Amino acid sequence: MSESKDLSKGAIFPIGDKLPEQFSSNFIGQAYLNMLTTTGVTIGNVTFEPGCRNNWHIHHKGGQILLVTGGRGYYQEWGKEAMELHPGDVVNIPPEIKHWHGAARDRWFSHLAVEVPAEGASNEWLEAVTDDVYGKLN
Amino acid sequence: MSESKDLSKGAIFPIGDKLPEQFSSNFIGQAYLNMLTTTGVTIGNVTFEPGCRNNWHIHHKGGQILLVTGGRGYYQEWGKEAMELHPGDVVNIPPEIKHWHGAARDRWFSHLAVEVPAEGASNEWLEAVTDDVYGKLN
Repeated sequence: MSESKDLSKGAIFPIGDKLPEQFSSNFIGQAYLNMLTTTGVTIGNVTFEPGCRNNWHIHHKGGQILLVTGGRGYYQEWGKEAMELHPGDVVNIPPEIKHWHGAARDRWFSHLAVEVPAEGASNEWLEAVTDDVYGKLN
Repeated sequence: MSESKDLSKGAIFPIGDKLPEQFSSNFIGQAYLNMLTTTGVTIGNVTFEPGCRNNWHIHHKGGQILLVTGGRGYYQEWGKEAMELHPGDVVNIPPEIKHWHGAARDRWFSHLAVEVPAEGASNEWLEAVTDDVYGKLN
């Protein structure tokens, strides 16, 4: 777990374990998940190793709120420029918007992911973020 | 704002402004509030100066989740021992439970407060945490 320890340098919330297989297949690179609570509101601490990002995906019905707690990363909505993210940034991801998020190439990245409760909420996982798109980001 | 700057040392989320009067009357000492989002789920960053704590209070219908991001503080439910809190700690406050939270005597304290959505949710503010109760804590 020395890799985890490196990633967690400066992290506030424990980074948890490697993503389970049913999630990790939707990521490029290694990510870690620590579910902080599933009571009332579901909140997970997600940590991406450098270069790690999730695939394009859509939250149906309920959106998701990202609270950035460490490192440097990106959030991008389909058809828009990527936004660079730093600790203290907040991203309100509306439902039905195709997007991805993840670490910068050379930095780990941590955010809390707050699921906005909604009846019948689901996630739709799509294609990977290609090197063509990701490669433009520093 | 030099006071705010001292408090925000090491803070991740901007501490925002002094609590508005309608809230500050339910606190002993100075607290700061930065609403991070009110879309989907209401999340505020609350910062307490050393010795600052809120009155006993109850969240009706929906509870509240505290995500500790800085400093050292306490959470106490009526009739129970106070719990000491550090960065990375998570407190799930159930609805209808009388409780308070706040800073240690000699340390500022920051937590995110996530409101658990519920129809007809409300807060009931009660008596101050007396020096008798607070004074036992280090």
